[in-house]
Amino acid sequence: MGAENNSEVTLRNTIEALSCKENIKDVCHLRHHGEPLPSQQSVARIVELCRGLIFPGFFGDSDVNRNNVTHYVGIRCEQLREVLVEQITAGLCFSVKEGKIDLAEIAVSAQEKADQFIANLPKLRELLFTDVKATYLGDPAAISTDEVIYCYPAIRAISNYRIAHELVKLEVPIIPRMISEQAHSETGIDIHPAATIGAGFTIDHGTGIVVGATAIIGNNVKLYQGVTLGAKSFDTDADGNPIKGIPRHPIIGDNVVIYSNASILGRINIGANAVIGGNIWVTEDVAEGEKLVQAKANNFLRFKQ
Amino acid sequence: MGAENNSEVTLRNTIEALSCKENIKDVCHLRHHGEPLPSQQSVARIVELCRGLIFPGFFGDSDVNRNNVTHYVGIRCEQLREVLVEQITAGLCFSVKEGKIDLAEIAVSAQEKADQFIANLPKLRELLFTDVKATYLGDPAAISTDEVIYCYPAIRAISNYRIAHELVKLEVPIIPRMISEQAHSETGIDIHPAATIGAGFTIDHGTGIVVGATAIIGNNVKLYQGVTLGAKSFDTDADGNPIKGIPRHPIIGDNVVIYSNASILGRINIGANAVIGGNIWVTEDVAEGEKLVQAKANNFLRFKQ
Amino acid sequence: MGAENNSEVTLRNTIEALSCKENIKDVCHLRHHGEPLPSQQSVARIVELCRGLIFPGFFGDSDVNRNNVTHYVGIRCEQLREVLVEQITAGLCFSVKEGKIDLAEIAVSAQEKADQFIANLPKLRELLFTDVKATYLGDPAAISTDEVIYCYPAIRAISNYRIAHELVKLEVPIIPRMISEQAHSETGIDIHPAATIGAGFTIDHGTGIVVGATAIIGNNVKLYQGVTLGAKSFDTDADGNPIKGIPRHPIIGDNVVIYSNASILGRINIGANAVIGGNIWVTEDVAEGEKLVQAKANNFLRFKQ
Amino acid sequence: MGAENNSEVTLRNTIEALSCKENIKDVCHLRHHGEPLPSQQSVARIVELCRGLIFPGFFGDSDVNRNNVTHYVGIRCEQLREVLVEQITAGLCFSVKEGKIDLAEIAVSAQEKADQFIANLPKLRELLFTDVKATYLGDPAAISTDEVIYCYPAIRAISNYRIAHELVKLEVPIIPRMISEQAHSETGIDIHPAATIGAGFTIDHGTGIVVGATAIIGNNVKLYQGVTLGAKSFDTDADGNPIKGIPRHPIIGDNVVIYSNASILGRINIGANAVIGGNIWVTEDVAEGEKLVQAKANNFLRFKQ
Amino acid sequence: MGAENNSEVTLRNTIEALSCKENIKDVCHLRHHGEPLPSQQSVARIVELCRGLIFPGFFGDSDVNRNNVTHYVGIRCEQLREVLVEQITAGLCFSVKEGKIDLAEIAVSAQEKADQFIANLPKLRELLFTDVKATYLGDPAAISTDEVIYCYPAIRAISNYRIAHELVKLEVPIIPRMISEQAHSETGIDIHPAATIGAGFTIDHGTGIVVGATAIIGNNVKLYQGVTLGAKSFDTDADGNPIKGIPRHPIIGDNVVIYSNASILGRINIGANAVIGGNIWVTEDVAEGEKLVQAKANNFLRFKQ
Amino acid sequence: MGAENNSEVTLRNTIEALSCKENIKDVCHLRHHGEPLPSQQSVARIVELCRGLIFPGFFGDSDVNRNNVTHYVGIRCEQLREVLVEQITAGLCFSVKEGKIDLAEIAVSAQEKADQFIANLPKLRELLFTDVKATYLGDPAAISTDEVIYCYPAIRAISNYRIAHELVKLEVPIIPRMISEQAHSETGIDIHPAATIGAGFTIDHGTGIVVGATAIIGNNVKLYQGVTLGAKSFDTDADGNPIKGIPRHPIIGDNVVIYSNASILGRINIGANAVIGGNIWVTEDVAEGEKLVQAKANNFLRFKQ
Repeated sequence: MGAENNSEVTLRNTIEALSCKENIKDVCHLRHHGEPLPSQQSVARIVELCRGLIFPGFFGDSDVNRNNVTHYVGIRCEQLREVLVEQITAGLCFSVKEGKIDLAEIAVSAQEKADQFIANLPKLRELLFTDVKATYLGDPAAISTDEVIYCYPAIRAISNYRIAHELVKLEVPIIPRMISEQAHSETGIDIHPAATIGAGFTIDHGTGIVVGATAIIGNNVKLYQGVTLGAKSFDTDADGNPIKGIPRHPIIGDNVVIYSNASILGRINIGANAVIGGNIWVTEDVAEGEKLVQAKANNFLRFKQ
Repeated sequence: MGAENNSEVTLRNTIEALSCKENIKDVCHLRHHGEPLPSQQSVARIVELCRGLIFPGFFGDSDVNRNNVTHYVGIRCEQLREVLVEQITAGLCFSVKEGKIDLAEIAVSAQEKADQFIANLPKLRELLFTDVKATYLGDPAAISTDEVIYCYPAIRAISNYRIAHELVKLEVPIIPRMISEQAHSETGIDIHPAATIGAGFTIDHGTGIVVGATAIIGNNVKLYQGVTLGAKSFDTDADGNPIKGIPRHPIIGDNVVIYSNASILGRINIGANAVIGGNIWVTEDVAEGEKLVQAKANNFLRFKQ
Repeated sequence: MGAENNSEVTLRNTIEALSCKENIKDVCHLRHHGEPLPSQQSVARIVELCRGLIFPGFFGDSDVNRNNVTHYVGIRCEQLREVLVEQITAGLCFSVKEGKIDLAEIAVSAQEKADQFIANLPKLRELLFTDVKATYLGDPAAISTDEVIYCYPAIRAISNYRIAHELVKLEVPIIPRMISEQAHSETGIDIHPAATIGAGFTIDHGTGIVVGATAIIGNNVKLYQGVTLGAKSFDTDADGNPIKGIPRHPIIGDNVVIYSNASILGRINIGANAVIGGNIWVTEDVAEGEKLVQAKANNFLRFKQ
Repeated sequence: MGAENNSEVTLRNTIEALSCKENIKDVCHLRHHGEPLPSQQSVARIVELCRGLIFPGFFGDSDVNRNNVTHYVGIRCEQLREVLVEQITAGLCFSVKEGKIDLAEIAVSAQEKADQFIANLPKLRELLFTDVKATYLGDPAAISTDEVIYCYPAIRAISNYRIAHELVKLEVPIIPRMISEQAHSETGIDIHPAATIGAGFTIDHGTGIVVGATAIIGNNVKLYQGVTLGAKSFDTDADGNPIKGIPRHPIIGDNVVIYSNASILGRINIGANAVIGGNIWVTEDVAEGEKLVQAKANNFLRFKQ
Repeated sequence: MGAENNSEVTLRNTIEALSCKENIKDVCHLRHHGEPLPSQQSVARIVELCRGLIFPGFFGDSDVNRNNVTHYVGIRCEQLREVLVEQITAGLCFSVKEGKIDLAEIAVSAQEKADQFIANLPKLRELLFTDVKATYLGDPAAISTDEVIYCYPAIRAISNYRIAHELVKLEVPIIPRMISEQAHSETGIDIHPAATIGAGFTIDHGTGIVVGATAIIGNNVKLYQGVTLGAKSFDTDADGNPIKGIPRHPIIGDNVVIYSNASILGRINIGANAVIGGNIWVTEDVAEGEKLVQAKANNFLRFKQ
Repeated sequence: MGAENNSEVTLRNTIEALSCKENIKDVCHLRHHGEPLPSQQSVARIVELCRGLIFPGFFGDSDVNRNNVTHYVGIRCEQLREVLVEQITAGLCFSVKEGKIDLAEIAVSAQEKADQFIANLPKLRELLFTDVKATYLGDPAAISTDEVIYCYPAIRAISNYRIAHELVKLEVPIIPRMISEQAHSETGIDIHPAATIGAGFTIDHGTGIVVGATAIIGNNVKLYQGVTLGAKSFDTDADGNPIKGIPRHPIIGDNVVIYSNASILGRINIGANAVIGGNIWVTEDVAEGEKLVQAKANNFLRFKQ
């Protein structure tokens, strides 16, 4: 074999630089003990199976009829349990950065959490159907609840949120975030899985919506595209970094409507039945039943070209 | 076999709850008569085939040269017809919620609609190329019409809209909405397939754009990211639910430009050659040639930190 | 064989119309000399391999441990080089619209560019890790840098931008744009690959962000969802079309924060340490350390329903 | 575009020669009326589903437990019916070379045949299990009936034969032959689907076995590798071609054993309990209980090298 | 919902019959404790990985050069270990028909066996290369050892045998048999994994070869197509069933050649350097260096038609 | 990181042993210059495309009708040329073991060979159809030439042989052997691609057939399963190894029929119209029209058990 050419030298040096111990300390996720890894594919499968169980015949391989619906549900429940146990285990291991992982102990915990999640599926279906009905009734372009279930990105985003939120309640790390980010990618709707959202929740169009981790939303709330329920500012620690875990997002009362591109910021209260107009920046409480609209007169100059 | 363990009991109960007759009434899409089902994959295939036929060599397996272009187009036309017939049939069946489906009659109708759609492909190409040219001429960063066709999400979204709109005109249910939602998911551009849009339509960046079902857009209109052509309010029926089918979105004249995040709401007229500045909330008519800009002076406070 | 039926006639006419020479002149990308074609799949593979090399164990098939990290990196570097050479060649050929392609010459150039790209990977990792750290420190909801690397769409978008920008510097056509549009589609964040962005760049939520081709961004800048760094207007040529290549996007200083839905337009300077409030429309310079906030008092009317 | 090069001329001429009407008359299978086509993949799926239904937990995705076996069987039965109807239809259409295909009529017939096939599955399972038991008892190397079901190519070949034979009895064209050829390819065992074979049939090793279309085999027969149950000669018609459909293969009684590479040729009777030694050529009847062994003494010369 | 139609009744009855408890007792492989299942795909992957490790650059994704061979081998060794542990575990569980499976204990055992298997790979390579060299030297049509490694089905069959035999020595159930049956299916060569075979083993053409479980083959032996090293008869127990585990296949000395379709039956000795002619039936010992040829004179009648 | 465990040590040692330079010299196929590699998948694709071109509508995606057959053939011809050029290049490179590969020169040669191959396809179709007709006429169980084309393994084996033989005539290394081994694996029929075979060739059942590299077969010859046209002995060189390239297989005249398991060995002549009975071992010339049958009387002993 002859001398190395330039390209070979480049490769060798790059490989060395990218894999030497000191360089991979912070950027590499090592697998220590044969534990499963969080997997985008498996997480997507969890959501697909849940959606197929909640709305049989709409998602998954949808060949469902009156005779096989129990068989269909039975097989998918088993499949869901298997992938849930695997990914909950993966999530629990992922968050153990240092120290010994006790895989057997984690697996038992994962099985319990998976069972609790599955036991809750019928309630999850009821809750999601309140969202479907509210969406159908609130959209003049909607033809049927079937169309809403099958086509509306809002239902996709809310489904992922509600599934992820159940896992947050079961204290499963990372997997809920992956579930909500998948909906974020598909729909442009970014709902943090730790947020609390009541029944009959509707979203119109939805792209650009942000709902923060500590937001609390009542029943029958409707959001339009581009709405932010965000933080106004962060309390910072001695190093100037934000302190984690402080309630910092708004509380939205029942029956509130928030129009497109409005930003509601900070731990403020928007009272029940309030209406927030589009493109508004709100950082103070709004009383029950109050209505905020953009001050049109001052908002733009109109002149002939 | 021993007694059931807890996990088995949970599974059994959940399966029972999720599949018992009373619980699946509204949430389950049953297949009654062996009809095909709307399929996201097949719908994506329709779009992919149309795009490969309209812009040969850019999409699909793109190995097209001067000798095989007829063969390439021929094969894809046949494939398109097959999947169109299947999915139009599926759409027609999907919207039959109750009663007997006459599959043979629906299939004949689906074949006619598919033929009409295919007969219109050459005109669809002409129309789409006006969009491509307008995009190329209007974007200083665009290097060639080839780049525009191949890379620009706006062309993807407008292609899906124009394909879906043809199917709306042929009165195909649900499939058009699926086509436009696929573009919405990929590009963040949400154009309702029932909207009417003229030639030379351009979109810049595009994320967050919303065009409502009854909007009418003239020729050579340009929209920037975040623009909403929406409804201002809904007429409601006795139960307080929106009445379906009323014109409620704006009419945009020829050569109008609408800058980023502007919201144009209600059945208003934006006259030809008007310019709407960014971040503006417009709910009243704008005259031909008029220009609206944000009243900057009042818009923000500037101070030293 | 009998006479043609209507459907056959339609197909034949459409095929003829779609493939006749005069009709395909502008809309067809012909392959002249057996050159490779730009491929969305291959471009996605380039990004996936880069991400797997920069953050081993997080992406790709992630089964990395302390013993195999060098092997893992070694194999992926080789695979990356192969697909890079192919797609850089494809990009170089794609931009040759007329005239003879010298495939051998292009291949040599592609190999050199690929080697230069690979040699730069260790620096790319360092740079991206500054983004990860800044994101972790700046987000109260972030649990670990691992979570940031694995789940945050901002890191996906910035990774794609930084990879694409390296290829822009190597004068590779079209491929960088494809890479950034893939991130745009997944995250709603649209960063032009020609933009210049310093270290420690962070994005929160991100949907709807637009960064133009000639924008220059300093170190430790933070953008929120819906922010536009755009052009105000285009210089046009004698035909009224925009002149290509003129600097037209803003210059953002170090440590600037820009809140959600703010639009910064034109070749203006935003001084270091400035803060731009949300939903603001800025078309003039902002001094170092200055803070702009929406004039709330004038912004909306508040009344009881 | 320049003149065609040699390679282009070659391609054009070949395409013309391969597709001109006179040349494709006999070698081309045209699809006239949108009918489904026999598909190797679908036929393989039929066999896989049958095997999964007959031996649950061994084949297909094998995750079967005591709680889900009914669901598993239920889903697979539905899937089997769907693909059976499609492929039986395809088979019925395939054999209609000239004239109008009445797809609706054929579909009804296909559905009836599919239902009859499915109704027979429990009996098919009983029959196949007699083969499994006989194989286990007859092979000193077999560890369990489970191993026989899961690993033995003989069981694969006999399963395919028994499935195909059911379809022969239902007068389904071509599909049975495809099923038996798939087993032939996998195992080297070539059993014509029209042959008649009793219970408790066993095959050892099996490669090279041939069982002809009109062969009749009793209960508890065992064949070793390379055995031929073939035709001795064909009655020919006036043109010297074999007359189709005449019984021309042997009748094998109960409990017969035929050792490796023996050839039994013609419509002869091998009486019950007979034993045929290896490498023998038999063209005359063998009586009940008779034993034929190779005349070793004359068979080879033995000498020192 | 109306009354069931005939087809629905048939399905329901069949599902009931196929899944009721009494009917599935013997034919169903239930999974009791979440254990992995033997998988044809995973077993094929084991063989593919072994072949890629033993002959790098020939099998698997073969992009191996002088710089990456260590990385290539490293990654594949890790992958091999993972799938080996899984499938050895599956094999050990598969053979536990009744009683409690202690998955943790089995997993430890599987890991030890996998490590022992891997430690033996270098020796396995040496042994297989003796087979390659012998094949190349013995076949006038062979062009290079590379061609032998890459194309010869004999090397495929012998590789599978040698891999499977290692697992037999490690007392792994069922997996070895699956490995040898995969080679049997691909090549028509049926070597029982428990057979003992020396170095420099060659097979020509190979279809129809059978080597029994207790056969012992010396060094540098060559077999032609259709050769059987089989059992002559089985000792039977009181029920007339063969007694399992008794030595019943031949012992073949070094340097023996056995020509096509010869059958060597029973626990006899074929002495070193013996030559067995084709189509011969041998049931008695053959001395060292002896040569057996078919008694041609008596073998056929020659006459004019 | 702690000390290595045993398993890690085993892996490290094995990787070292399998990849160190001295150990991989003979067993590793290195890729030196970016050349393509022979690929089983691509070779299978060549055969699939040829079969789809020769028998349109039977193989590949078979949706061929009277309107699209030219398009279908056109696309497949182009695809065939592309994969042929790649694999012929790979084959030419594979056989260059030492020294510099001139890829550009090899590519030109590969393109010429591919064009010659394609130019010959119409003749190949004619020849193969003689085989189909002969098979149909000679088999009483055959229902139509369509069934023969679609289902008969003999046609698969002969197609692969005739395709591979064309490549042998064009002096393409290794690829022909891969093509014939794929048929060998699927059908058990092992025809060396260098053999010469006339028109109207038929095979019945076929498993176990061997046709050697220097065999010459006339027109209208029929072989049954298990027939060997082999070498009797090899001339050896000074080292005792067979001399390569010497004619050593039989010459079979027109209209010869050879029954099952007959072995014809050595460079002998079987005269036209001869008939060779089954299970016979022939090593001497057979005259024109002669008939050889097994001497039944001496062949076995018949007695009562």
